[in-house]
Parts: sequence; structure tokens; C-alpha cells
Amino acid sequence: MDLNTIIGGALAFILVLGAMAIGPGGVMVFVHIPSMIIVFGGTIAVIMVAFPVSDLKPIMKVMMVSALRKTSTPTEQIDRIVEFANLARKEGLLALETKLQTVEDPFFGKGIQLVIDGFSADTVRDIMELEAEWEDSRHGTGRKIVDQLGAFMPAFGMIGTLVGLVQMLQDLSDPNGIGLGMATALLTTLYGAMGANMVFIPVAGKLEMVAKTNQQLRKLMIEGVVAIQSGEKPQLIKEKLKGFLSPPMRALVDAES
Amino acid sequence: MDLNTIIGGALAFILVLGAMAIGPGGVMVFVHIPSMIIVFGGTIAVIMVAFPVSDLKPIMKVMMVSALRKTSTPTEQIDRIVEFANLARKEGLLALETKLQTVEDPFFGKGIQLVIDGFSADTVRDIMELEAEWEDSRHGTGRKIVDQLGAFMPAFGMIGTLVGLVQMLQDLSDPNGIGLGMATALLTTLYGAMGANMVFIPVAGKLEMVAKTNQQLRKLMIEGVVAIQSGEKPQLIKEKLKGFLSPPMRALVDAES
Amino acid sequence: MDLNTIIGGALAFILVLGAMAIGPGGVMVFVHIPSMIIVFGGTIAVIMVAFPVSDLKPIMKVMMVSALRKTSTPTEQIDRIVEFANLARKEGLLALETKLQTVEDPFFGKGIQLVIDGFSADTVRDIMELEAEWEDSRHGTGRKIVDQLGAFMPAFGMIGTLVGLVQMLQDLSDPNGIGLGMATALLTTLYGAMGANMVFIPVAGKLEMVAKTNQQLRKLMIEGVVAIQSGEKPQLIKEKLKGFLSPPMRALVDAES
Amino acid sequence: MDLNTIIGGALAFILVLGAMAIGPGGVMVFVHIPSMIIVFGGTIAVIMVAFPVSDLKPIMKVMMVSALRKTSTPTEQIDRIVEFANLARKEGLLALETKLQTVEDPFFGKGIQLVIDGFSADTVRDIMELEAEWEDSRHGTGRKIVDQLGAFMPAFGMIGTLVGLVQMLQDLSDPNGIGLGMATALLTTLYGAMGANMVFIPVAGKLEMVAKTNQQLRKLMIEGVVAIQSGEKPQLIKEKLKGFLSPPMRALVDAES
Amino acid sequence: MDLNTIIGGALAFILVLGAMAIGPGGVMVFVHIPSMIIVFGGTIAVIMVAFPVSDLKPIMKVMMVSALRKTSTPTEQIDRIVEFANLARKEGLLALETKLQTVEDPFFGKGIQLVIDGFSADTVRDIMELEAEWEDSRHGTGRKIVDQLGAFMPAFGMIGTLVGLVQMLQDLSDPNGIGLGMATALLTTLYGAMGANMVFIPVAGKLEMVAKTNQQLRKLMIEGVVAIQSGEKPQLIKEKLKGFLSPPMRALVDAES
Repeated sequence: MDLNTIIGGALAFILVLGAMAIGPGGVMVFVHIPSMIIVFGGTIAVIMVAFPVSDLKPIMKVMMVSALRKTSTPTEQIDRIVEFANLARKEGLLALETKLQTVEDPFFGKGIQLVIDGFSADTVRDIMELEAEWEDSRHGTGRKIVDQLGAFMPAFGMIGTLVGLVQMLQDLSDPNGIGLGMATALLTTLYGAMGANMVFIPVAGKLEMVAKTNQQLRKLMIEGVVAIQSGEKPQLIKEKLKGFLSPPMRALVDAES
Repeated sequence: MDLNTIIGGALAFILVLGAMAIGPGGVMVFVHIPSMIIVFGGTIAVIMVAFPVSDLKPIMKVMMVSALRKTSTPTEQIDRIVEFANLARKEGLLALETKLQTVEDPFFGKGIQLVIDGFSADTVRDIMELEAEWEDSRHGTGRKIVDQLGAFMPAFGMIGTLVGLVQMLQDLSDPNGIGLGMATALLTTLYGAMGANMVFIPVAGKLEMVAKTNQQLRKLMIEGVVAIQSGEKPQLIKEKLKGFLSPPMRALVDAES
Repeated sequence: MDLNTIIGGALAFILVLGAMAIGPGGVMVFVHIPSMIIVFGGTIAVIMVAFPVSDLKPIMKVMMVSALRKTSTPTEQIDRIVEFANLARKEGLLALETKLQTVEDPFFGKGIQLVIDGFSADTVRDIMELEAEWEDSRHGTGRKIVDQLGAFMPAFGMIGTLVGLVQMLQDLSDPNGIGLGMATALLTTLYGAMGANMVFIPVAGKLEMVAKTNQQLRKLMIEGVVAIQSGEKPQLIKEKLKGFLSPPMRALVDAES
Repeated sequence: MDLNTIIGGALAFILVLGAMAIGPGGVMVFVHIPSMIIVFGGTIAVIMVAFPVSDLKPIMKVMMVSALRKTSTPTEQIDRIVEFANLARKEGLLALETKLQTVEDPFFGKGIQLVIDGFSADTVRDIMELEAEWEDSRHGTGRKIVDQLGAFMPAFGMIGTLVGLVQMLQDLSDPNGIGLGMATALLTTLYGAMGANMVFIPVAGKLEMVAKTNQQLRKLMIEGVVAIQSGEKPQLIKEKLKGFLSPPMRALVDAES
Repeated sequence: MDLNTIIGGALAFILVLGAMAIGPGGVMVFVHIPSMIIVFGGTIAVIMVAFPVSDLKPIMKVMMVSALRKTSTPTEQIDRIVEFANLARKEGLLALETKLQTVEDPFFGKGIQLVIDGFSADTVRDIMELEAEWEDSRHGTGRKIVDQLGAFMPAFGMIGTLVGLVQMLQDLSDPNGIGLGMATALLTTLYGAMGANMVFIPVAGKLEMVAKTNQQLRKLMIEGVVAIQSGEKPQLIKEKLKGFLSPPMRALVDAES
């Protein structure tokens, strides 16, 4: 779990809810179920217009998994590749089969399986690169949906506020009613601004960072799997893979080994 | 029919109309024919300035067909191509002529006709690719018009509100009149925001998705038609065409066959 | 004349003026000469800062001609090229000279003149392509000026409204004066929004469409002139030139011939 | 001097100041020194944060010279190049030295000096192209600073207005004080809008046009200098250089010679 | 230290704080700790959602060092490279080791170390270019975070103002309370505008300038180190490196030597 994302998101809500709580009337002044339904429901409804169900279903999972998941570090990946390379050099490529069960990441698992099945280095590389590309395009669709959620929420916030203002303006005889009517009208704009700026825009940013890191890891894994197949010395593989890392990352790998 | 798009669009309107209905005065407070004419009429009028009639006429059809149409799935396409390939191998290319009547999609039909007419593989591929390009550019113009509709509607909403405000400000003696005048003035902004965010921007997004999927299907069909002509084994054709699909799509094709 | 553009533009103004007319005070409430001078004069003044006089002088003509002109259809062009090709084959290239007077379009005329003067096909093509490029860059500058007019008008509308608000706020003792002062202040914003959204932005869109169509016609003409020079069969030229058209256009050419 | 830019800029200010003068209180209502200091001072201050002093010092000069300078016309340049070519053919390249003093433009002067010093055509071209590139990148930095001035002014206008509103809202007991306080608060927004839309954004546009024209002249000069060196016939050089001009410019050159 | 950045930033705050001080109530009217916590805390919280801790930790240092650091001038770099080249020619490459301690810049130090270690020119160049690329991508992440800080601050300012307005509208019975409530509500928008326009957007601009200058220096250093290794004449190296500078910079180098 990526504590950063959870702490950041929670902190943003605690701050804004706190500011609501210390004011007159407390947090309850800001809770208005019909306004919530317009903003959240309307946003989800128009997203359904543009994207097929098959892309929308996994979006909650994509948001959860990708946003909260702590992507495995390059250090861990390099250590595992070196371990597999050691095994392959000592006991042959077929011996990798027994270790395959322990691999959770299907991408790395598929690569090792291809090596065991005896495909050529070029084929292994081609298939793995295509797989990484599909993965990236799948994440891209998810990111686009989250982007759109962040773009439509303020729009529905504005629609809700306009509806509320028109209703409030029907009767200006009671000054206090005006105040409360306007407060309620503003709530949808507030919900839209909160949803966009505190959830969807930051999560879209996170998904972009995760996708970028993920693609770098995929490149490292492809080189690693091909190197395992070629039977290179594990220590040499490690040095080679370190070339994919930024200097501070390299220092980290050296420090940990 | 793509239920997603219809349900999404209907849901968005039900939510906003519901919010209008539960307020004082109900939905009728939000119905103001002159305001509707300014926003919808003005938007369509300026779109007529920029685009020739010949591009505008089919726009309603493009919106309906492309937005609501459920594009045929790759699975269906692959199945049909395999079927045609089987027939061609058993009874020769000319036998395809009898099956041609059953083909509704003119793109695939034209490809098969070219094969029957005995054109070379390169010519078939060139003509089909050019046809796919023209189709894409035609859809592109439609998408651009829908984009522009979404951009001009809020502008006419603002023009209408400014006209209404100037009229309302002529007489500030009756406080209740101010409220009703301002409410009416705001209606055009509301119409503009609803038209843009609940119809045209989401439909433009849908058209983009449809065009993208369509181009992928066109590529698959071109490869399929050329493969039918070359007399390849149907099973091999199927494997080859599956390479155009994302991994989950491939799993789907395998599951259904 | 392109009725589309004229009808669209007229319709937009009729709708907005109609909305003004049915309100209290009628259209005259919206006429304020000093406000018009600020918005229109100011916009033109800052455009003069950025663009040299030589580019500004023809802008009214460019707007009129390009916006209203109905570009000649590809069908007409193809018919004329075929006609010239027939003549050249029967009576020789020099016979084209007598028909040159009937050509209004200077671009096509220059191409035919080059052919009569006996330049090589490559030279004819090079000169015509350069000429088409210059034409496009000249239209591009015109389009940029219209774009800028559409961008500065709302800015001067806002400046005018701020000036009016500051003046109105000097004396808040008479409530009715406040209303009228604010109404007048809002007029410049209204003029800016109307000028930008009902004239300049749609005309810029039209100019873009005209330029795009024009460039496609230029390509067709270049191929046509070179084909006339080479003495190809008119029917073959027609088939070749149809390749530059979209499928529905091609059907149109076939239907008319 | 480019009268266009001066007349345009002056006209814009005359129009807005005129609109201020005819209102109640006249122009003096719009003069508020502290508000001016916030908007102008604040904008310049944050520009200092981003750009080094060495880039900022020449900005006033760049704005003056580039914005007001009437760039020399291509006709003048071609005439001079032909004159130099004549001299070089009659009296040899060294004879150019005596005419070098009359050249004000350092770019052309440097080119001629290189020719006199006997460098090869390729070296002359390389050095002049590099020099033109540096000139363009120097102008680019100036343009970026003017762009930023146009972007930060409205932001400081808004900051000033927010400061003024908060101060005005401290005491709502005197209605007239509210009006005057709000008027003063709005002044910074007005200054920001005027500075951006009447000075910096148009000047940035002018700088872009000047830079573009300048680069075209530089290309023409480079070809001219290389042609002088090669000893081509002056009349031939003239024809060649005319190829760099748009058709109306060419007509102008022909008319004047 | 780059006085420009410090003076500019300080000046902007002095101007705005001065404008606050001369108004009724002074600066204290603008201090509202809960509002500050919402805007600053909320912005930092959502930045934590998108960026991993490892990128956020060094951001304060990056902002300080990069924004305030006066990047070493090309003149200084060229002088040092010439000094090292002199030493290498007189006493051999190994003699550079004694001077290595005096080098503070790790990039140049690493380059010289590679030369001493006897790597080939190509290897030295490859490793240094990769190092420069990583440095640039590291600065790029920092710049992106500062950009995002500038984008989210106004959003949280708006959220805070909406929360304040809703609370203020609960009770409209006391006119003075309305004023103070609205003033407090506006403070978050003011903080957001100040933070974005007076700190983060200008600093992001500065970081971009620093990164650009830095990359130019890196190129110059790489050429310098490779030239030292090749044993070229120091005077020749100087001339060569001057080719990387703009003409005014070159004049400066000549003037100082």
C-alpha cells in the first residue's frame, strides 16, 4: 500500500471537513443529499455516454489498485532476476518452472514461461514488448476516464448551482430564505470543486506516475528475462540492469546488496 | 443499440430534471421557450456560418448512428472472415459472390467484391486503406461539428443571460420582479451548460471512441480480406487476426470459439 | 455566394435582436454608441499594434470574399480540365491561348500560361506548388487576424464593463441610477461576447474550411494542368483526378457527367 | 518608425481614457497610485524572480526598438545587394571594403566582412546562419518576457481587487463608503486588464511578426551575400532573391525598379 | 546567490503587504490561520496523493538551491577547463588527480575522474551525456511538482471561499457579520492567488530557465573534458568552447581574458 496517497487524500479531507466543523452549524450544513446525487450521479451518467461499459467496470479497481499500490521497487526486481539467473545457470532453464509458482506478477511470469518453453530471444522480447504496450494502453484508457471525471464534476457543480439559484430567485420575500437557498445552491459547486481537485485530478496524476514507473520496470524485466535466457553471469546482469536506473537508485541498489 | 449511451444520457437528464421538480415551482419554472430559442437557435446559426450545408445535413444522422450504434465486435468480424475463408478454400473465390448479399457493412462488402473481381492483393489493400482513410476524415468532420456545438452553446447561454440582465436592470422598483427577471436571465446560462455538458461534449467523446474502435476493425478487415484472397488456412487466419486484439479480447475470442 | 454563411449569420443576429425586442424597452435599451466605440474601436486599435497596415487593409476583403464565396466545386474544375485537355489534344497546346481569356481563376490561368509558354512539367509543377503555398500563407495571416479580433473583443468588453462599474459605484444614492448604470456597464461585455461568438470566431472557422477546400482544389488543378501538358486522354485524366475526391464526391462527378 | 503600432496603441488609450472622461468624476476617478504600484510593481517583481537581470535589462530597449522599428523592406535589401554585386564584379571583392562603412545593419556588415576576408562560401553561410539563429533565440527570450508580463498583470489585478474587497468588507455601515471602496478595489483588475490587453499582449504579437519578417530577411541576405561572393550577374541575383518574396512583394520590386 | 530572485520575490510581498497595511485594520485583517491551513495544507496534501515521498522530500531543497543558486557562468567554466587542459599538457592526465579535490561540481568531477581512469573518449562522452540526461529528468520532476503546487493552490482557495460563503449565508440577520464573513471567505481565494502567482508560478519559471542554462553548461563541460583528454592546445579548446556561447557571451569571455 502506498501510504503517501492514502495519507495525502485523507489529510485533504480532514482539513476541509475541519474547516466546515469549526464554522456555525458544523459539518451538517454541508451535507445535502440531492445536491450530492446531481453532482456525482450526473458526472457518472455522462461518463457512461462516452465510454463503453467494458471500460467503465474495471475503473474502480484500476483506481484502487493503481492509486494505492506501491509499485515494486527496481531493487526488488533486480534481486529477483539475479536469483532466477543464478538458478538457471546452476540447474538449467527448466529448473525455473518450480520457482514460477512464487511469481505474482503475471508479466514477469509470462516472460519466464516463454523462456522455459524454449522460444528464441527475439520472440520473447517481441511478445513481452507487445504485452507491455497493451498494458500501457489499458492504463491509458483508465487514466482518460479519471481525467474526464475530474473535468465533468465542476460542470455538474455549476449546473446544480444554476438550478438552485433559479429556484431561490422565485421568492425573495424572506431574506433568511434567500441566504439558505443560496447556500444550498453553492453546495453543488463546492462538491464539484472538491471531487475534481481532491480526488480525480490528483488520482489522475498518480496514475500517470504509476504508469511511467511501471513502463520503466517492464523494460528492466524484459532485459532481465532475455539475459536469464542467454545464461549471462548474474553479477554482469545486475550491472547491466543498474544502467536502467537513475544514479540515486543505483546507489540504493549498491547499498542494499 | 448501445444501451450505455442511452442509459447514461437519460440518467443525466432524469437527475437534473428531478432536482428541478423537487424545488418550489417544479420543472415549469425552468421552461422558457424564448431562452431556449436563443441558445439552441443561435448555436445552430453560427455553426451554419462555418460549415457548408453538405457537412451539416448528415450531422444528426452521424450523431444518432455513431453515438447509439454498438460497433460490431472483433469476435464477430473474425468469425465472419473465417467463414468466408472456409468457403473460398472449398469452393473458390467466385463462390463468395453468393454470400456477398448477406454482408451489410459496405466496407467489408467492397473488399470482398475486389477479391472476386480478381484484383491483386496490393491493389485490394491500397483501395481498402484509402477507403478507411476517407471514412475516418468524414467522421472527423462530424466530430468537429459536435465539438463546436459544445463550445458555442455556453457562449450563447452567456449572451442570453447578459441580454436578460440588462432588461431586468431597467426597472429595480419591484424586488420580486428583480428575482424573476434574474431567474429568467440565468436560464440561458443553464441551458448552455446543460447542452454542452450533458449532450455535445459527451457525444463528441463517444464519437472519438467509436472512430478509434472502427479504425481498428478496419485494419483487421483489411488483413482478413487479403488473407482470404491468399487462400490461407482459416485457423491460421484466425490466429493472425487475434494479434490485432488486446489480451482480454483474445481470451474472449478463444472462449467463444 | 454561400447562402449558408449569410443565412447563419443573419439568423444569429435576428434571434438575439428578437430577444432584445420582446423585452421591456425594446432594442433601443441595447444601443449605446460610446460602449460600441470602446469595444469595436479598442479591438481594432490593438490589432493595429500587432499587424502591419499592409496585412490589415485587405482583411475586410478577405473576410467578405473568403467567407461568402462559394468555392468552385471539384466537379466544375474537373469538367474544365477535361475540356482543356480535349482542346489541347485536338488542336495543340497553343490553341489553349484563345480559351485563356475565359478563365477567371488566376491560379489556373497562370498554370495554363506556363504550359503554353513551353515550360517543362517539373517547372510547371514547382511554380504552381509555390504559388499555392504563398496563397495559403496569405490566407493564414488573414485567419490569424480574424482569430485575434475574436480574442480581443471580449477583453475590451470586460475593460468597458470595469470602467462603467467604477463610474456607477461613485454614487449609490439613487437605486434606479444603479440599475441603469450597471445595465450600461454590462453592454460592453455583451458587445464583446456577440462580436466574438457571432462574427469573428465563426468567420475564422469558415476561413479555415475555405482554405482547406481551396488547397485540395489547388492540388487537383496542378495535377490537371500537368496532365493536359502531357497530352493524356481526357477520360483517363478524369479518372485520375477523381482519385483526389472523397467517395461521395466521386459519385457526384459520375452522376453529373 | 512604425506609425501603425504607435497610432494603434495611442488610439486604444484615447478611446478608453475618453470613455473614462465622459463619465461622472472624469479620468481622476480612475487614478489611484497605490493600486498602480501593486499591479505594475508586483508584475515586474515576479518577472524578476524568473528571469536573470541580464535578460531583463535590455527588455525595454527590445520592446521599443522591435515594436516601433519599421523593419527594412525586402525591396531595399535586394537593391543594396544588387549594388554591392555590381561593385564586386567591376572592381573586385576588396572594393566592398570602402562601402562597408555605410552599412548600418551589423548582420549584413558581418557577412560582407567575411567575404572580403576570403572565407569560403560554405563558411560564410554557416557563420551567418548561426548568427541568425542566435538573433532569433535572443528575440525569443524578449518575447517570452513580454508574454509573461501580459500573463501576470491580470493576476496582480485580481490580487489587488481581493485585498481591496476584504478591506471594504470590514465596515458596511456607510453605503457610500461601500461603493467607493468597491470602485477602488476594481481599479487593480481594470489596470491589469488594460496593461495586458492594450500593451503587452499586442506588443508580444508585434514582436512575433517582427521576428518572423526578420528571419525571412536574414535568409534573403545570406543568399545575397553568397551570390555576391560567387560573382553572379547582378540581374540574375535579383531574380533569384525575388523567389524569396510573396507574389505581391515581387510585383512591388518590379514596379520600383 | 541569485539576488534577482530574492529581491523580486521580496519586492512582490512588500508591495502587497504594504497595500494591506495602509488599509483600515492593517495587515492583521488578512491573517486568518484556519484559512491558511486549508489552502497551504490542502495543496500539499493533494500533491502527496500524486507524487511518491521520495520525489517530494527533496522538493524544498530543489526549490531553494535551484531557485536561489546563481548558476556558474560559462566564462568561469571555460577558464577552469583551460586551466585543467594546461596542466594535462604539461604534467600528464594523472596530474589532474591533485586538482580534483578543488572541484565542487560533481558532474565535472566525475568527467575528470573518468579521464584519469583512462576510459576512451566515446565512453567518457556517453557516461557524461547519460548523467546530464538523468540530471535533467530529476529537475523535470521537481519542476512538475512546483507547477502542480501553482495549479492546486487557487483551487483550494476557491474551495475555502465556497465553504466560508456557505457558512456566512446561514445567518443574514446581522449586516456587519455578513461583511466580516464574506471578507474571511475571500481570504482563501487571496491566499491561493498569492501563493500561485507570487511564489510557485514564478519559481517554476525560474527552474525552467536554470535547467535550460544548466544543460547548455553540461554540453560545454562534456566537450571540454573530451578536449582535455585529447590533449588539444588550451587556446584552441577555448575558441572551440566559445562556439557554444551567444555572441554577447563570447564578447564577455574575450573581454575578461
